Amino acid sequence: MSAPSESQRMEKIVSLCKRRGFIFQSSEIYGGLNGAWDYGPLGVELKRNLKNYWWRVMVHDRDDVVGMDGAILTHPAVLKASGHVEGFSDPMIDCRTCKAHLRADQLVEKKGVKQCPNCGGRDLTDARQFNLMFETHVGASAEESSIAYLRPETAQSIFVQFKNILEVSRKKLPFGIAQIGKAFRNEINPRNFTFRSREFEQMELEYFCRPEQGMGLLEYWKEERLKFYGNIGLGRAKLHVLNVPDAERAFYSKGTYDIEYDFPFGRQELEGVAYRTDYDLSQHQKASGKSLEYFDEETKEKIVPHVVEPSAGVDRTVLAMICEAYAEDQAPNDKGEMESRIVLRLHPRMAPMKCAIFPLLKNKEPLVAKAKEVVALLRPQMTVFYDESGAIGRRYRRQDEIGTPFGVTIDFETLGEKDPTLRDTVTLRERDSMKQERVPIQDLPVILQERIR
Amino acid sequence: MSAPSESQRMEKIVSLCKRRGFIFQSSEIYGGLNGAWDYGPLGVELKRNLKNYWWRVMVHDRDDVVGMDGAILTHPAVLKASGHVEGFSDPMIDCRTCKAHLRADQLVEKKGVKQCPNCGGRDLTDARQFNLMFETHVGASAEESSIAYLRPETAQSIFVQFKNILEVSRKKLPFGIAQIGKAFRNEINPRNFTFRSREFEQMELEYFCRPEQGMGLLEYWKEERLKFYGNIGLGRAKLHVLNVPDAERAFYSKGTYDIEYDFPFGRQELEGVAYRTDYDLSQHQKASGKSLEYFDEETKEKIVPHVVEPSAGVDRTVLAMICEAYAEDQAPNDKGEMESRIVLRLHPRMAPMKCAIFPLLKNKEPLVAKAKEVVALLRPQMTVFYDESGAIGRRYRRQDEIGTPFGVTIDFETLGEKDPTLRDTVTLRERDSMKQERVPIQDLPVILQERIR
Repeated sequence: MSAPSESQRMEKIVSLCKRRGFIFQSSEIYGGLNGAWDYGPLGVELKRNLKNYWWRVMVHDRDDVVGMDGAILTHPAVLKASGHVEGFSDPMIDCRTCKAHLRADQLVEKKGVKQCPNCGGRDLTDARQFNLMFETHVGASAEESSIAYLRPETAQSIFVQFKNILEVSRKKLPFGIAQIGKAFRNEINPRNFTFRSREFEQMELEYFCRPEQGMGLLEYWKEERLKFYGNIGLGRAKLHVLNVPDAERAFYSKGTYDIEYDFPFGRQELEGVAYRTDYDLSQHQKASGKSLEYFDEETKEKIVPHVVEPSAGVDRTVLAMICEAYAEDQAPNDKGEMESRIVLRLHPRMAPMKCAIFPLLKNKEPLVAKAKEVVALLRPQMTVFYDESGAIGRRYRRQDEIGTPFGVTIDFETLGEKDPTLRDTVTLRERDSMKQERVPIQDLPVILQERIR
Repeated sequence: MSAPSESQRMEKIVSLCKRRGFIFQSSEIYGGLNGAWDYGPLGVELKRNLKNYWWRVMVHDRDDVVGMDGAILTHPAVLKASGHVEGFSDPMIDCRTCKAHLRADQLVEKKGVKQCPNCGGRDLTDARQFNLMFETHVGASAEESSIAYLRPETAQSIFVQFKNILEVSRKKLPFGIAQIGKAFRNEINPRNFTFRSREFEQMELEYFCRPEQGMGLLEYWKEERLKFYGNIGLGRAKLHVLNVPDAERAFYSKGTYDIEYDFPFGRQELEGVAYRTDYDLSQHQKASGKSLEYFDEETKEKIVPHVVEPSAGVDRTVLAMICEAYAEDQAPNDKGEMESRIVLRLHPRMAPMKCAIFPLLKNKEPLVAKAKEVVALLRPQMTVFYDESGAIGRRYRRQDEIGTPFGVTIDFETLGEKDPTLRDTVTLRERDSMKQERVPIQDLPVILQERIR
């Protein structure tokens, strides 16, 4: 259980997410759909920045990785071969008193007796396996044969297309196939805001290799992924690597690291980096009867490649970034008095809006005109936010709350009215330090680009 | 029906898409899942370029549009209010002879009698309405109350979140909310490659306005969207605007344009631009009991905004770009003899790979080292493809086929061995004209950036 202050902190974060348009409950005006979330104007930009950065680092910056984008609707044979149809389930128990569906590991034990965590009831059913896959019917008949599943992970479409992609990309081992996309799990109890939801997005890499390279690449990818989280602003102190013990790993895995993060609601998994051996490709080769082998030109061998999988969650990483960034400190108001402020200290690379632009007064036309020139100058290179309403301190506060790292104020000095040498210079304010500097407008693109990339 | 040469052309395009890794059949090694497709390494990049360009033009470049990203799983109340549960269906007829499920408008009429287009059978059932929405069950019980639908369009989540987004964005009418995401329709007969599939991606804008602005904005958006298609390389001659007649429009629409494209399989809709009046917001206001009104500060009125919706299909636009780009012409081989080549004349802005980099010989270390320097120079700014294997003409051909607009060859002149004044210059080849020019390596980033943006 998390401390009261931590649960208060989480409440404040959820409230900020709704109030400022990061994340809304899905279908909210109809009472909400449990376990599904909608990203608002700022949330969608934060998520885009994360996904685009992952794609850049994991695909575009590398010679040894290509991308793909597979369908969500999945042929049942794929998920039979992967083991999901048989085994992708959680043990479920019902409370006969309050009718709650419970995951077996969520029961509370008091005086040696299991109780329902909702009502304290002790009249519980036996545990039964509940498959977490969503099922639907494809085509015009509702026969058994027309079942399709919403994929429970993006990985399987990579394995299923392995041979096609190997042929078209002409890659040599080791090489990887990357994918970002939605996946679905019918969680018995979705919870912790967007952390455990029924619809979510994954960023997965399947990195194929020779068997003898597996353990080394497991270490390599664990380190690469830790670097990644540092580069998007997650502090090393809150990141933890769990070496998953033999007994808790999937039976086919020779090694798995969980990269965990200290959320306000506890330490939870952000990403799994798993050495899955040749299990997946072998299963699909067996079930489909199609060769998924690789011909090694140097050793003249045909082998089924092994694979190391760094598998990250988009939504939980977005949530970790927001949790890490959320801070309350003191800042001066328009009268110079110190007041408490909420500030999202997002990494500039991830921030939804990179720069806010403020004319000092909205009823002074030359200030507004100049501010709009600055908008036009910066917009081709970054997301900008124009705001002319309210006192300047209040406008700073609004941007602090949404994590905009830079603010530019166009004032009378910009117009050169007092001091001609200051003409066409602006105040550039940094969000965290609140320090201000005077810079020429023409230098803004380069200065800002350097600080946000 | 399309002419034989057009259907041959389509076959060649489908074949190229598979051979070069643009598009694969989904779950292919298990016999395929009808109506679902996977994008391969090049397809995913082409699709990303399209979606990112749409987002840039429709959201980032504008002051009056914000984005969102809603869940696919949708509360049934949303789709009851929108009319989808009741009316989102196609008339379906079964052929009792071959058991085919047919859309009523696909029957063939011979001598005044309707026949099955598959087997020519005349023993047909009456038409019945077949709802196109995919249904699934959310949560641990399979009761009626737990039904959720996969959204049949992205638009509804925009309407449902209208009030939240209005509040957080503080926008004034007219303003828009944009979304890109997957949608699902259980088509009776998916066909024409990726054109009509069961899982697809949409790019939708809902542009809200005062009632008196609706018809003008319908014209405005039709023109904007036509410009967009020009900017991604679709020729104006193959684009058509259909002013949908009163009788064929949805009853609530006061005007709809279909933007159509001449595919090899016929003229088909790329995008609908529809003036939907206040139908959607009014329906959701009524059904949810929540106010979806806008307070106009100038007129001091509360109104339910009207909306103009440009709704584009990602997959069909990708397909249109590939169809437009596909060409066969003559090019010289390594001996200078003319041979036929396949070339994808994709707009450079959309091409998956922007520049290919070739060392003239792979066994000459200084050439390879210099080529890798060029890769490192260009990679931070664009997608690059390094290829050292095979004769140079063959390498050009491979890039022509995937639409890479530029190729850079590192040769002995680059090393300055013959003529020191040519040291560190390379051959830059343009895909369509096949013209070559000699440029300094250091100028490549700027030259290429200008031509691909």
